Amino acid sequence: MPVGELQDVFDGVQAQVPEGLADHLRTVALVDHHVHGTFTEAVDRATFEFSINEGSNDPVPTWMTQFDSPLGLSIRRWCAPLLGLPPRADGEVYWKRRCEFGPDELATTMLPAAGVSRWIVDTGFKGDRITPHRRLAELAGGQSSEIVRLERLAEDLLVDGGTAAEDFPDAMRSALARAAVDPVVVGTKTIVAYRTGFDIDWSRPTDADVVTRARELTARPGPPRIDDPILIAFGVHEAAAHQLPIQVHVGFGDRDLDLHRSDPLLLLPLLRTMPPVPVLLLHCYPFHRQAGYLAQAFDHVNFDVGLAINYLGARSTGLVAEALDTAPFAKQLYSSDAFGPPELHVLGSVLWRRAMGLVLGEWVRTGDCTEADAIRIVDMIGMTNAQRVYGL
Amino acid sequence: MPVGELQDVFDGVQAQVPEGLADHLRTVALVDHHVHGTFTEAVDRATFEFSINEGSNDPVPTWMTQFDSPLGLSIRRWCAPLLGLPPRADGEVYWKRRCEFGPDELATTMLPAAGVSRWIVDTGFKGDRITPHRRLAELAGGQSSEIVRLERLAEDLLVDGGTAAEDFPDAMRSALARAAVDPVVVGTKTIVAYRTGFDIDWSRPTDADVVTRARELTARPGPPRIDDPILIAFGVHEAAAHQLPIQVHVGFGDRDLDLHRSDPLLLLPLLRTMPPVPVLLLHCYPFHRQAGYLAQAFDHVNFDVGLAINYLGARSTGLVAEALDTAPFAKQLYSSDAFGPPELHVLGSVLWRRAMGLVLGEWVRTGDCTEADAIRIVDMIGMTNAQRVYGL
Amino acid sequence: MPVGELQDVFDGVQAQVPEGLADHLRTVALVDHHVHGTFTEAVDRATFEFSINEGSNDPVPTWMTQFDSPLGLSIRRWCAPLLGLPPRADGEVYWKRRCEFGPDELATTMLPAAGVSRWIVDTGFKGDRITPHRRLAELAGGQSSEIVRLERLAEDLLVDGGTAAEDFPDAMRSALARAAVDPVVVGTKTIVAYRTGFDIDWSRPTDADVVTRARELTARPGPPRIDDPILIAFGVHEAAAHQLPIQVHVGFGDRDLDLHRSDPLLLLPLLRTMPPVPVLLLHCYPFHRQAGYLAQAFDHVNFDVGLAINYLGARSTGLVAEALDTAPFAKQLYSSDAFGPPELHVLGSVLWRRAMGLVLGEWVRTGDCTEADAIRIVDMIGMTNAQRVYGL
Repeated sequence: MPVGELQDVFDGVQAQVPEGLADHLRTVALVDHHVHGTFTEAVDRATFEFSINEGSNDPVPTWMTQFDSPLGLSIRRWCAPLLGLPPRADGEVYWKRRCEFGPDELATTMLPAAGVSRWIVDTGFKGDRITPHRRLAELAGGQSSEIVRLERLAEDLLVDGGTAAEDFPDAMRSALARAAVDPVVVGTKTIVAYRTGFDIDWSRPTDADVVTRARELTARPGPPRIDDPILIAFGVHEAAAHQLPIQVHVGFGDRDLDLHRSDPLLLLPLLRTMPPVPVLLLHCYPFHRQAGYLAQAFDHVNFDVGLAINYLGARSTGLVAEALDTAPFAKQLYSSDAFGPPELHVLGSVLWRRAMGLVLGEWVRTGDCTEADAIRIVDMIGMTNAQRVYGL
Repeated sequence: MPVGELQDVFDGVQAQVPEGLADHLRTVALVDHHVHGTFTEAVDRATFEFSINEGSNDPVPTWMTQFDSPLGLSIRRWCAPLLGLPPRADGEVYWKRRCEFGPDELATTMLPAAGVSRWIVDTGFKGDRITPHRRLAELAGGQSSEIVRLERLAEDLLVDGGTAAEDFPDAMRSALARAAVDPVVVGTKTIVAYRTGFDIDWSRPTDADVVTRARELTARPGPPRIDDPILIAFGVHEAAAHQLPIQVHVGFGDRDLDLHRSDPLLLLPLLRTMPPVPVLLLHCYPFHRQAGYLAQAFDHVNFDVGLAINYLGARSTGLVAEALDTAPFAKQLYSSDAFGPPELHVLGSVLWRRAMGLVLGEWVRTGDCTEADAIRIVDMIGMTNAQRVYGL
Repeated sequence: MPVGELQDVFDGVQAQVPEGLADHLRTVALVDHHVHGTFTEAVDRATFEFSINEGSNDPVPTWMTQFDSPLGLSIRRWCAPLLGLPPRADGEVYWKRRCEFGPDELATTMLPAAGVSRWIVDTGFKGDRITPHRRLAELAGGQSSEIVRLERLAEDLLVDGGTAAEDFPDAMRSALARAAVDPVVVGTKTIVAYRTGFDIDWSRPTDADVVTRARELTARPGPPRIDDPILIAFGVHEAAAHQLPIQVHVGFGDRDLDLHRSDPLLLLPLLRTMPPVPVLLLHCYPFHRQAGYLAQAFDHVNFDVGLAINYLGARSTGLVAEALDTAPFAKQLYSSDAFGPPELHVLGSVLWRRAMGLVLGEWVRTGDCTEADAIRIVDMIGMTNAQRVYGL
């Protein structure tokens, strides 16, 4: 399949980005510290549209298309050339061309353009439909690491009576102890935002309380679903006790979560009292200023604006700028949070590089920092902070 | 009365807006999907100043003037030329000149400059002081439609014992059934933000509960005021059951409301469970990013940043930009929410056109979309989304 | 010690700021309406780094430096030349050079560059480590006034049984009556954000209730700490009864406070019912849009974005822009909230001048106001609003 190549990420704005900074941003090898696999099978139009609409749980209605969104425009602009189309090709044209590619072909065509040297993959969600972390790295180039989702880990232990409720605390500890020495696993993740919201009692529960809740949970019909504050707090505290970094889904996500109850400020009771293992606040929009504040206030707190960068498309420059409001540069990371279409893996990178060039380029042009400073900030957020936090 | 004409809406920024887009924005006929009438009588200075101060319920104090505000600057800039004065005429000069016009003359001088083809008028507030919807359209040009305010409708039914409490549920249903087939009425509105805040129980109440509350309400001295969560939820659910679009006052408003309790995220329990009739989140500032998120997450949710555009004046470009963060372009609408001085009807339009030109113009200039895309986005937000939502 | 001088505050952006506005902003004598003293003794590197990290209560960790933050970049850019170094000197170079100065020398080298004619000093916090208000003015030039911290005042009355609980209400009233006639004291301040959050019962308490709480408080071991809602509300209501302006710490601060519980909208019950003495919402980030809204809605409410301007560094232009969203220009003030290193006293002023020039300069260039308007807005926010509010 004859394909094209990525437009220059500074197309249309070259004059605004000092050359050395631009060159560095074009080539710096990123650590994508929170990402998922690509689809393993071809998807139909409805699934594709659904996959580029974060918030909804319904099919995109017939009277609209997600191409008519900031993300849709960005796909047309940046991904069309990768498929050999002109930039900004029409949505219909894009879709027709895309259908000529198999899922692996799409992945190998797009993923390398992300310029990622390490993919840190959250494998806890719909793992059967998407590539495992090693396969992602194979298709994309680069290396891979794994993030263990705490709620999923607990559910896997409890499913089908595999672990009795009274053994659950020790089983969880054993599993986390194994994760802590597994060279592939570099951290954990909690989706408490989806299960209870952040406004829960974050004190460390006793084993007795955990056993009681595990017993209640397993007595319910159907597969176990960890939606109990005590069981969630238990997982987080045990991960911390095992010195494992903890990613936290914050803000922007689908409508199953109460967005206002995922304001990261509601995590203050946890952040103030937990052992200081790295906490990674993910996505954070529209609470990214709050997240930056927390990263400034707590040595162990870090954050990113992944996922939101993709969904804001051309508007992501403003988001990246706001994410630089107050946080020390050592406390912010890069991620795409891509899931499914490989367009998302590329766009996360392209839009971040472009936005960083525009924001830091202006700082350099108006004298707020040197070009060397700007390049160092890029390296910290794009790469070295993740290396430090995850001990890569 | 010799008058002037509107400055070019891109005065001072022509170089930033591609010509085709600029021309389109200068002339596109808007649907103002949420607006009120103009004053029917001449107003004194104190009333005028009060009318351009959204939040307060007091007269503007003597040590200041509302001309010294973002909105005040915009009036001086854009409206002064309509009255035959130079742009940015001094506030005193503006006021003196304005006093030479009668209310109808002011309206016919200013309103046509808004370039609105249809005014969708909320007639539920202080209707005696302002022009009814047909009169507004007569003065301005264009057509008009009507929005029925749910709390006012209920109050009108209950006033002076006109409807007995036990007949109230059926009376409300009958009224809404009539509204649903009235060709002039295109939707409803709730001001729950002013009456209880959004954090109420949004489940659909039983008729028995509604009757009980109606009885309590009518037993209170004075005219009935719908401030009971059950009665409010009843109105909203009945409007939805009658397939009527529902406008919801969100955010920015006067200080009678608890602004933080009008965060649209607090509507999640309603949005998740109601029948999917169009919901229109109005104004939304400073929660416009939250509103855009909801519009992305729910097929039936739409929003605007009307009212706030006027009050932000020159700063409205930043607001319009943020309103384009995540929402599909099919889910945002234009409104002015003007009430009283016809300056507000014009400014809503002028500032929106200018801001859209600046924001989308930059997208075009830097390659994020084509000029045709930008023009289509303008048409969707300015016109066709309203046509779809209200079935015009 | 040979020293240098401040770079032009419009270095790098001269073309964006009309000349008359720029000249005015370079020289206008500011009222810094909320500030603290400078360190009286030399500080070590750890203390310095800690002093330029608002949110944390821990030493800055070894794997990072606060020079790698927006504030750190601004110190290198703007303060290095004051010490005779080139702008953007390396952090290590800066620190080494800084160590050559004694604390008074640092102060006299830096403070005059702030161009402040009056320092309104909050003396309630760690007063032993920093210069008293008169000494600050001596080192900096200009005059000084004092702000009395309400919680500290109450604690000083109650400490060591100095005032019996049953005499506390009258003692507090006497102290405030003295403050109200003291020519040096121009207002009060509450740190309720740090003690309880804003979501308390703001009704005016009876003396009997106050006595009960004061008794409970003094019965606790250790020095008295006013953290009781009734005692806090008492102080605020008494300050208002004595016609004293009331500063309120809002938003951005160290992690001891629950940032989300310092959203100024939670003050609505107080603002609606209190006597209309001037209320000054301080800092406000990230709730500055909410603060601007309140300043628009209540005649007696004013706000600033001090402290945050420093911490946002180059990003403060966006903050200053957002602070101009909706509030009348008569309702915003300038402050630095500097505490400790004199760098903070200078930066507050430099960054504010620059940001105002960029934001208002754009308004002038694109026709949104005249240059005379912009200059008047600068004077209001930088000087005359404070004069009016504090009766200077």
